[in-house]
Amino acid sequence: MAKPSPISPLAPTNVPELPAIAGVRLATAAAGIRYKGRTDVLLAVMDKGTTAAGVFTKSKCPSAPVEWCRAVLKGGKAQALVVNSGNANAFTGKTGKTSTKLTGDIASKAVGCKPNEIFLASTGVIGEPLDATKFNGVLATLAESAGPDGWMDAAKAIMTTDTFPKVATATVKLGKAKVTINGMAKGAGMIAPDMATMLSFIFTDAPISAPALQALLKAGVEDSFNAVTIDGDTSTSDTLLMFATGAAAAQGAPKITKASDIRLKPFVKALNVILNDLAEQVARDGEGARKLVEVVVEGATTKASARKIAMSIANSPLVKTAIAGEDANWGRVVMAVGKAGEPANRDKLSISFNGIRVAKLGARDPSYDETEVSNAMKNPKVQIKVTLGLGKGRDRVLTCDLTKEYVAINGDYRS
Amino acid sequence: MAKPSPISPLAPTNVPELPAIAGVRLATAAAGIRYKGRTDVLLAVMDKGTTAAGVFTKSKCPSAPVEWCRAVLKGGKAQALVVNSGNANAFTGKTGKTSTKLTGDIASKAVGCKPNEIFLASTGVIGEPLDATKFNGVLATLAESAGPDGWMDAAKAIMTTDTFPKVATATVKLGKAKVTINGMAKGAGMIAPDMATMLSFIFTDAPISAPALQALLKAGVEDSFNAVTIDGDTSTSDTLLMFATGAAAAQGAPKITKASDIRLKPFVKALNVILNDLAEQVARDGEGARKLVEVVVEGATTKASARKIAMSIANSPLVKTAIAGEDANWGRVVMAVGKAGEPANRDKLSISFNGIRVAKLGARDPSYDETEVSNAMKNPKVQIKVTLGLGKGRDRVLTCDLTKEYVAINGDYRS
Repeated sequence: MAKPSPISPLAPTNVPELPAIAGVRLATAAAGIRYKGRTDVLLAVMDKGTTAAGVFTKSKCPSAPVEWCRAVLKGGKAQALVVNSGNANAFTGKTGKTSTKLTGDIASKAVGCKPNEIFLASTGVIGEPLDATKFNGVLATLAESAGPDGWMDAAKAIMTTDTFPKVATATVKLGKAKVTINGMAKGAGMIAPDMATMLSFIFTDAPISAPALQALLKAGVEDSFNAVTIDGDTSTSDTLLMFATGAAAAQGAPKITKASDIRLKPFVKALNVILNDLAEQVARDGEGARKLVEVVVEGATTKASARKIAMSIANSPLVKTAIAGEDANWGRVVMAVGKAGEPANRDKLSISFNGIRVAKLGARDPSYDETEVSNAMKNPKVQIKVTLGLGKGRDRVLTCDLTKEYVAINGDYRS
Repeated sequence: MAKPSPISPLAPTNVPELPAIAGVRLATAAAGIRYKGRTDVLLAVMDKGTTAAGVFTKSKCPSAPVEWCRAVLKGGKAQALVVNSGNANAFTGKTGKTSTKLTGDIASKAVGCKPNEIFLASTGVIGEPLDATKFNGVLATLAESAGPDGWMDAAKAIMTTDTFPKVATATVKLGKAKVTINGMAKGAGMIAPDMATMLSFIFTDAPISAPALQALLKAGVEDSFNAVTIDGDTSTSDTLLMFATGAAAAQGAPKITKASDIRLKPFVKALNVILNDLAEQVARDGEGARKLVEVVVEGATTKASARKIAMSIANSPLVKTAIAGEDANWGRVVMAVGKAGEPANRDKLSISFNGIRVAKLGARDPSYDETEVSNAMKNPKVQIKVTLGLGKGRDRVLTCDLTKEYVAINGDYRS
């Protein structure tokens, strides 16, 4: 492990305090999985009856915990979540499977539930066997000490190359009751759809059935985590899990069984805000990032086409290094539009950086003032807007710049 | 323009002397397109009856010269090639088209042929109008002074961020006559299929019809230039042109009208060696490159599937930064295999670095010695070999590492 990087200059300045969520108890420990002198295990214990939903990496070589979660998710019930950082338990062959089974067994005994109500997530180095015996004793102790607070500690325990913990919260009405949503995420590199984040966990006390929860999560991820890319590299471990304890039913919250239930409207809105907030925090903590980059593509033939073009721009090393150099190099944006393979007409194309149009209708904007643009590029947030002039398709993707620090961090990760 | 980088440590040490090719005359000049104190225009004049073939970028936003060449290529005849560096004449709207027309007119007058026998290629900054009046006078002077030598000067005149000129040559038998093939290329960044190179020009005195030449070139590019990637970014200007003067017919070389003609066998072999040689030189001159990386994928379901997986590995910033850090981080290779979306079975996967197997059948190879691998990674050439164990599909792709120098070069290109 390289020495820890300083906190990203793009880290949010207003970090919310996360309230307790009825039915959720948390505890963290330093189990020495890989790191020394920091916590690396999180146990979240949830009340009986908690429903679960999940979205995972589309990698053809998923990690053992991803395969475990996919299997467990079929039951739709959760009583515990075990997360470790430092080792992803990915590409660990049969050992990986044995390791998830052992972790599930240890956790189920510690919490007092069936193994198929235990969710697992691991993040860190790929290919090293994860010694699950390290959870022996640790999880039992954590289950005893788990309490309703400590959300920030939980978010810290799941970090790897992250330079700051990522949390978000919202409280909204469901029927006449108040319900709370808390979320956390980790992820700084190897970030690309689908799913974009490496690990993210959302908890709520709203009483929502597992199928409804799954539908909400799947819809919510499309324009949040799946619209973030750091380096175009898709992790083998990407996991987004959501748990609903249902405890708010005691305060009169209605039991929801359909994602389309109109009473869910404020809840869905708040959930999407949280997902977007966490996804943006992932981009803000991109390895070596000095600029948050928002790529907006308008006038595409469809939203899907706009997404592909936006991703082509957001993943282009030449665009990203230009942003790092504070250079409004729109020629490289054209290149990235061109290579996306989607409908585009050079002579209808316009491009702006932070609201200043530099190219219109296929050529340099005559009114474009290099000094003005140069100043705008000094902003820590850079918006690249491409107008294709073909249709009504629009999409937005977040990324960050590509700096020497990214190379330094990743050229020296295992050493 | 950033200050010139030192010559790539991966530059070839044996640079061949290129012989004259009957029917081809070359001249270069410093027209002040963008650079100062160096040549930036190449004129190649070819005898009447020269046939032409070409392969171009698949970008949806091609440069004006690419559009010009596509149109001219329909005639299949060439009498001159005009190349400039410093300005790509790409995304220059109607001005770009006017500029190619003017260049074509000036060249056709200088050489004494029709404009539709003039081929144009431009490389350099995108989006800046190219002032074609700069060719006025220059091309006429060049046409007068053009001679059979000066191949290395020609290769130098077309460079942009290249740190060394790229040339290759071969002489083979066609029938009972000797024929010669000379090639040159430029390209260091914004390199990805298809076509991989930015600019490459091949000349021969063999008498080959335009359709046959086109077929040979199209076939040859697949495993050479299209199998090279520096940064996954596809240029708007990628152009590979081949010209056959036919002058060797006077020495008894048979006139070839079909690519499948058996007498072409040695010629085709030599042509493919040249295309591969030039493509490898492009990888060796990748911006900031310190390692030449060969990615071999075996045991895929098909060759096309192997290519996609190899490209996913070769374009992964995390794999490339690991190589820069001399880290045999096979976990990232697994990640890149997984994200390619092609058939792959984690538990059948094996991975080697420079012949040392680090992972087999989905897990760490027990015999793997970190010190031995670390030493192997110090080699300036690194081979990553992935065995999928699914079928007989095999492919090979060349790339380079991703270093801080890449970021430095590209964060400061326009300034």
